[in-house]
Formats: sequence, structure tokens, C-alpha cells
Amino acid sequence: VADEHTRIARIRELLSRGAPPSASSIALGIGDDAAVLEPMTGRIVLSVDASVEHVHFERAFANLDVLADRAFSAALSDLAAMGATPRAALSALILPSTIGDAELDTLVLGLARAAQRYEAPIVGGNLSRGGELSMTTTVIGEARGSILTRSGAREGDSVHVTGTLGGAALGLALLQAANATEHAEAFIARFREPHARITEGLMLTGVATACIDVSDGLVQDLSQVCAASGVGAEIDSTRLPTAPHFARVAASLGRDPVELALCGGEDYELLYTLPAGTRDPTGGTAIGRIVAAPVGTVSVRGVDGQPIAVRARGHQHFR
Amino acid sequence: VADEHTRIARIRELLSRGAPPSASSIALGIGDDAAVLEPMTGRIVLSVDASVEHVHFERAFANLDVLADRAFSAALSDLAAMGATPRAALSALILPSTIGDAELDTLVLGLARAAQRYEAPIVGGNLSRGGELSMTTTVIGEARGSILTRSGAREGDSVHVTGTLGGAALGLALLQAANATEHAEAFIARFREPHARITEGLMLTGVATACIDVSDGLVQDLSQVCAASGVGAEIDSTRLPTAPHFARVAASLGRDPVELALCGGEDYELLYTLPAGTRDPTGGTAIGRIVAAPVGTVSVRGVDGQPIAVRARGHQHFR
Repeated sequence: VADEHTRIARIRELLSRGAPPSASSIALGIGDDAAVLEPMTGRIVLSVDASVEHVHFERAFANLDVLADRAFSAALSDLAAMGATPRAALSALILPSTIGDAELDTLVLGLARAAQRYEAPIVGGNLSRGGELSMTTTVIGEARGSILTRSGAREGDSVHVTGTLGGAALGLALLQAANATEHAEAFIARFREPHARITEGLMLTGVATACIDVSDGLVQDLSQVCAASGVGAEIDSTRLPTAPHFARVAASLGRDPVELALCGGEDYELLYTLPAGTRDPTGGTAIGRIVAAPVGTVSVRGVDGQPIAVRARGHQHFR
Repeated sequence: VADEHTRIARIRELLSRGAPPSASSIALGIGDDAAVLEPMTGRIVLSVDASVEHVHFERAFANLDVLADRAFSAALSDLAAMGATPRAALSALILPSTIGDAELDTLVLGLARAAQRYEAPIVGGNLSRGGELSMTTTVIGEARGSILTRSGAREGDSVHVTGTLGGAALGLALLQAANATEHAEAFIARFREPHARITEGLMLTGVATACIDVSDGLVQDLSQVCAASGVGAEIDSTRLPTAPHFARVAASLGRDPVELALCGGEDYELLYTLPAGTRDPTGGTAIGRIVAAPVGTVSVRGVDGQPIAVRARGHQHFR
């Protein structure tokens, strides 16, 4: 394979192929000791997320461009959950010897595609050898107005979620089962190609009292909001939004669809609380409400209104 | 071992033990989806650096706190080379199952110590399982005045370096040889405990025409400056600054001290160019000059003034 400097030059070339962001704030991009962004008027929002082979993905699950785009989207989802606008990203890659130059090109084109889509240009990064593939993405966003935190949920708020739940976990289960099932492709795509809800996050600033992205599963992530806010929550399991055919495909794998929707991870939807009576600006689904106690606890009610036990503590990735 | 949320809470607690930075610009630290910094007046300088087990270090080389501090310092060195002031950092850790809770505490205390020393509080991060230990550090700095780049060196500039060269590579060789040698400890410490030259970087802004940190070795890093600046360089090998006993200890291992000083990596000194006649504000050592051609090439002259061949292309880490 090419040496590190040649690889960096190649990456720089591949990343520069797309159109530059409309209002470029990049004073200095890839190729120096560090990247430099022009001053921002808003607050700086920072997060880092790692996608590790055998923990977050297997290479058999998708092409490297798709896996790279997925890793980038997962990192961007944290900016969405803060109500921040993406400005730039850094990509640190640990590459095993099985990633040759052609494979690296594919991976980088996936990063480039995601960076373009989110208008978060990759301004720097790091290459290292290693025993297993990992893609660690740092995202830098700007918050001009208020930010969304986990700690502002109050008793009486309603609990909402964008999109549908459990689809990514079902897609992963389908990939692992590896036998053809009708309607499988939509769920597999949901696992492979998550979308960070940047637009919805921005809509929620100044409206939602708390927000988090659904990465570990609804119950676990909502319990994080509850713990940070000093409240509890009640979820109505009959209101959980799921995609068409979800229950049937889940059942075909012997999986409980309600549990998948409650505990499946990596949907990257936004989960947020709104003051009672507030119209949901994202068109999301109301699934429950915030209660005073017990603090940090999410209880779930079934079809008959009785509490149902949630078995899993939350999504633990696939290994 | 504790679960991820418990570990994050513990890390947050360990990191909060030190005194907060004097002028805190942290609006929101560890514990939400992302960290938030108050707006900066200067430009934002960003870099990421990974320290990977079996590539950049072995656990046998030092305690985990020392290895973590080293990883943090290596990342900060990129801010030094830009003439930026550190403001914050993010730490993404991939932890193999051999890192128990006690080991993680040790590692985090090393990060905390480094963050304190550089006044770069760790405001966020990521934990993941994985097969091999890696510590990926994102650093965020601020540049209020001009920045130092690699691309401004001009014909006639003098080439300077802070501190001494080759010491870290010699220390690594001593660790690998593992037989007791007089004066070994100082060089081993040089490998284990690098220091990012933040103060010197700030002194050089507005004065130096180009700057880089010595991570891959003098010749390789200087050739990067030359390539970026469209110039060449000539180095006088008799002027290379080295620590006391360097040549003797190198010879005891059968290593050529001049080659070690020219090609040894991870000294994290600053290498910079100054217009002819400019006093070096850092008290560094003049070691050569910038020439018009050949572009991107560093030639080295020996004791007799004749060119000497540099065997190694540069430091390739230890594996």
C-alpha cells in the first residue's frame, strides 16, 4: 500500500472533489499540522464518536463507503441532538493491513459523500495502522441560539420521537440471520444508512425542553434524559412509531416487535420532550409523558394499560 | 468491568478533580450528547491524533497514565506547531477487555494530568470496546493572531529547532534493547514523557515563516515544510542539538547518533524557519537554511561539508 503521506494526499484529493460548502468557514484544511476555521459567532459544539469493526459493524454488513457514511452519520447525530449546525469534521482512521489503497478510496468516498450531504467538510484527520478497522469522527458544530440538552425535561412534558423506532435493530438482526425475508431490504437499509436529524434538531431549539438521539435504544436513552433532568417517564407502548411491516418481519425472526422498538439501538432518531400542549414542530410522534418520580426510570405501559417489563437494559451493540 | 454509563460517570468524576481552567470557556462539558464552548474571538484550530497499542506504544513501555499523558501531549503538539492556545480536548478510547476499571482509572488520571498541565480540559469523548487499546485525542485551540503553517518558508530563511533531537528515538531503542545502560533513564523519559511546545509556538507566531512539530523525524518533517513551501533545505549535521551523553549512549546500542538525530521521531520539538538575521525568540538552535531547489528535498552536510546520505526515509514508529 502507499505510504502515509501519499495516502493523505490521495484522501485530500478525493475529499476535494465535491463542491465546497456554500459559506466556507475553512481558513486552512487538510495538509498542515491542524485545520483552522474562521471565528464563529455562535457557540462551538463538539463531539466524537467511534465506529469499530466487530463492535459496531462487520465488513460483511456493507461496502466500506456505506460503513464510513454510517460512522459519519452516527457522529453527526450528536450535533442534531444538540440543535447545532454542522460546520466541520475530523476523521481518524485506524486501518488494518486488509485495507489496501482501493479499499481506502472506497471508504474515503463514503466519508466525502456524507460530509457533502451534511455540509460538514472534513478538514483534518489522522491515519494509523492497527489490528482492526476503526473510524473515529470528530464533529464541530455551531449553535447560534439556544442548545438542546438532556437536562431540561419537566413533569408534565410530553415525550416525542422523530421517525420510526426499532428499524435499525431489526435490520441488524436480518443481516445476522442472513436468510431472505420479505421486506427485509428496507430494514437493512435502515441499519446501513442512518440519517442524522440535523434539520429536526434545529427546529426543536427553543421549543423542546430536552433532547437526545436514539443510539442505545429508546428506554436507555430516555432514562439518560430522565436521570439528567431529575424526573421519570411513562411510555405508552401502543404509540411507538414503527415502519410498515415491522411487526411481521420481527415476528418472522422470532423477535418481539415491542421490545425491538423499545430497546433497539442505532435508529438515530431524536427523542425529546415538549411542554404539555406544544405542537411538535418536527411532525414527530407523542409516545408518553414526563412524571416526577421515580427519577431516572422509564416505565412502559402495554395494550391493557398495565406496566410491561422491559427485559433488555438497552442495546449493547451486536457483540 | 462497569458498564459504559458507569465508566463515563467515573471518568467525569476523575477529570473534575483538578482545578478548573482559570478562564473557563466551557458552557457544557461531559455528560450530554456533545460539549459546548462559549464563542471564541479568534480562529478555531483543530487536530486529531491517535495513539495505538503495538503501533505507537506497548503497554510494557510505561504505566497507563504515562502512556495516556503521552498520547495527549502528542495531540497537543499539533496546536503548538500552529501557534495556537489550547482550549479543550475530546478523548475517544477503544478499550480491550484487558483494561479493567482500575486500569481505566489510571489511564484517565494520566489524561487528567495532561489536560491540567496544558489547560486543555477534556470536555467530551467516547468509549468503545475493541481488540486493541487506542487513545484518539481531538484538540481544539484558538489563534488570536496569525497562525504558523508549513507553507511559508522562503529561500534564505534559517532553519531552527527547539530543544534537542533524537532523544525519544534513542529512548525507544533503549526500551526495546532492555539492557541497562548508563544515562538510559533520561532518554527513556524523553520517549515516555514528551512535552508539547505550546509556549514556544506562541512565541513564534508573527515571527517564524513556517513551522511543524518533529513527529516523524527532522528530515521527513522538514521535507514536508519544503514541499508545502516550494523550496528545499540544507542541514548542517554538526549543528544538530542533542542531549548530554547522546552520542555515547547511541553508540552503545550500535546506533549512529547523527542518523538518530536526523530521522528519529516523536521528539515533539518545533522545527521552524526564520527570515535571515531574525533573532530566535525561543532560544532554539539554527541548524541550516532554506534554498530554492530542489523543491521538497532536504540535503544534509557532514563534518567535512560534504553531503551525507540519509538512509532512513523517516521514522516509521516502532513496528
